[in-house]
Amino acid sequence: MGKTRLEAFSDGVIAIIITIMVLELKVPHGATFDALLPLLPVAGSYVLSFVYVGIYWNNHHHMLQLVQKISGGTLWANLHLLFWLSLTPFTTAWMGENHFEAAPVALYGFVLLMCSLAYSVLARVLTRNHPENRALAEAIGIDRKGWISVCLYVVGMALSLPFPLLGFATYVLVAIVWLVPDPRIEKRMKQ
Amino acid sequence: MGKTRLEAFSDGVIAIIITIMVLELKVPHGATFDALLPLLPVAGSYVLSFVYVGIYWNNHHHMLQLVQKISGGTLWANLHLLFWLSLTPFTTAWMGENHFEAAPVALYGFVLLMCSLAYSVLARVLTRNHPENRALAEAIGIDRKGWISVCLYVVGMALSLPFPLLGFATYVLVAIVWLVPDPRIEKRMKQ
Amino acid sequence: MGKTRLEAFSDGVIAIIITIMVLELKVPHGATFDALLPLLPVAGSYVLSFVYVGIYWNNHHHMLQLVQKISGGTLWANLHLLFWLSLTPFTTAWMGENHFEAAPVALYGFVLLMCSLAYSVLARVLTRNHPENRALAEAIGIDRKGWISVCLYVVGMALSLPFPLLGFATYVLVAIVWLVPDPRIEKRMKQ
Amino acid sequence: MGKTRLEAFSDGVIAIIITIMVLELKVPHGATFDALLPLLPVAGSYVLSFVYVGIYWNNHHHMLQLVQKISGGTLWANLHLLFWLSLTPFTTAWMGENHFEAAPVALYGFVLLMCSLAYSVLARVLTRNHPENRALAEAIGIDRKGWISVCLYVVGMALSLPFPLLGFATYVLVAIVWLVPDPRIEKRMKQ
Repeated sequence: MGKTRLEAFSDGVIAIIITIMVLELKVPHGATFDALLPLLPVAGSYVLSFVYVGIYWNNHHHMLQLVQKISGGTLWANLHLLFWLSLTPFTTAWMGENHFEAAPVALYGFVLLMCSLAYSVLARVLTRNHPENRALAEAIGIDRKGWISVCLYVVGMALSLPFPLLGFATYVLVAIVWLVPDPRIEKRMKQ
Repeated sequence: MGKTRLEAFSDGVIAIIITIMVLELKVPHGATFDALLPLLPVAGSYVLSFVYVGIYWNNHHHMLQLVQKISGGTLWANLHLLFWLSLTPFTTAWMGENHFEAAPVALYGFVLLMCSLAYSVLARVLTRNHPENRALAEAIGIDRKGWISVCLYVVGMALSLPFPLLGFATYVLVAIVWLVPDPRIEKRMKQ
Repeated sequence: MGKTRLEAFSDGVIAIIITIMVLELKVPHGATFDALLPLLPVAGSYVLSFVYVGIYWNNHHHMLQLVQKISGGTLWANLHLLFWLSLTPFTTAWMGENHFEAAPVALYGFVLLMCSLAYSVLARVLTRNHPENRALAEAIGIDRKGWISVCLYVVGMALSLPFPLLGFATYVLVAIVWLVPDPRIEKRMKQ
Repeated sequence: MGKTRLEAFSDGVIAIIITIMVLELKVPHGATFDALLPLLPVAGSYVLSFVYVGIYWNNHHHMLQLVQKISGGTLWANLHLLFWLSLTPFTTAWMGENHFEAAPVALYGFVLLMCSLAYSVLARVLTRNHPENRALAEAIGIDRKGWISVCLYVVGMALSLPFPLLGFATYVLVAIVWLVPDPRIEKRMKQ
């Protein structure tokens, strides 16, 4: 089964997710720069989510490039990832509109955690069932960066209940770690 | 006539349908976990609709893979399917916001029924007019699973008027039946 | 210059236009079938606009298939068409929410008229500047159907001021005329 | 690394941006032509933004055509451009709803300025790191038109604080300058 349409559909969904988040930046009623100030937390959480969805798109792109063959199970593992990503606009808006209070920050981290696990599941489905995707399997190896992120998300969620801003800072940290595209795959692709 | 643009357009529409449904998950005003509780029915109906639209995308994907040639009639049969799918966000939101009351659950089933019939019509248009699409025609054969679903949707709609939750459970059942991609087509594609 | 990306971008914009129109079907507050009754005019105008946007997608698809080469001017002629199409959700909602009153029906027809003229301009840009697109030029010939529609839109707009429903009926008539894909291009493509 | 998916994703995001702007044209409550009058400023800013996003799509399209190879950095430079473009619907709505007052017009210019700089950064990333993209590098040369726009945006922002309409007129001027596709790239592509 070809991967072209899987990529096209994922690109479509991710493009919509990354763009509709901006609809939560509600146009303020005043026409002064001061009227923009209450939007700063929403804008801040928008930037972080934009970067996160961008990271997922980049890594999805990288991962699929090493894939030769997909199966019916892949389609569902991919939809599962898109499902969790599709909740990002909701958690982004809830966190931004409530100025980074405890519960919204924790829920934001929970959705990030589920996206991260869904991505790992997708990677495993792609490598386990298909010996043809060995290039990807070897490139991923022991997914250290993935597991560290999972731990950091859990830490961030725990931190966010007493100290929401520390939780948020943890998520920012993970985003910075991932901004660099996966060198294992980058290296493999040059060969 | 090539099928690439038909696939691209369908992917676009389905990607938007599956993503804008999440806009109905309105951000709650409170910043506590309790504030999320009233959203649970909306979230539940979102999950079911996400799975359903995902099923349609998967099966659309599978079906088009066996197709060699499309005609002007195909474009309209495809738009007809997309039309009914495009009503899913509306019925999903109505059902979720009214906590699974009778009328919304019945309408939700009606739109599922129409999607299912529109899918059958598309399959028939693809196979009947084009002898080149014989591979698809043979793969589909007598569409038992399709007809069982149609019956179950009607049963679900009837059940939902006195017992809405039973109606909803029927739709969940049909979704589970379809989660497995069509083995007839899967088998054919391996040959 | 290749036409692939022009097609992909147009598919994207048209897919979004056809799908966001459904967002105007606002979820009613009641949970009875009666609560749906006030939505019928909105649903009716949604169906007509869905068909119209579908017609434009189909014809755009057909037209581009005969095209070999595009230029910078084509990109703008195409964006001009997309601009008028993008106003369809607005006029659809205005017409539906005001139960087919005079001014909204006339404006709806005006946007249809502009779409139709923009489509003609695009066809002319594609054929005039590029001798390579002769197949398209010959297929179109004297665009009788196009000019009849333009006249009917103007008639519909004029009728809609005293008798809005007659204006609406005129637009339905034009849609029916166009539901059949252009036989000139269909014929040419078989050769 | 192939550029197909980068183009597809950018097309998706730009298509959504250009289309969701029309959602800010809120359907008026009255059903007379007079009810449309208050929408004129919103419609005016919609037209300008539609043209601007169209310009970016056209130039993005032209630029990528000369590119042979992309890297991980390109993906991020591209996402950076998409981020600033994604703010256009917000600034368009704020400017339109406030009838071109000083602060919204200045912010509108600021986002245009950032888009323009992000585009320059993308062009530089594409040419600097990849000797294979020499055709693009030579085509761009000293980017006079780009730098003049940057200056004009700054002038427009400064003008908009005392005379908002002059600021707006400056942005219109830049749009007219860019409506013509880049002749340097056009010429290069003919070779």
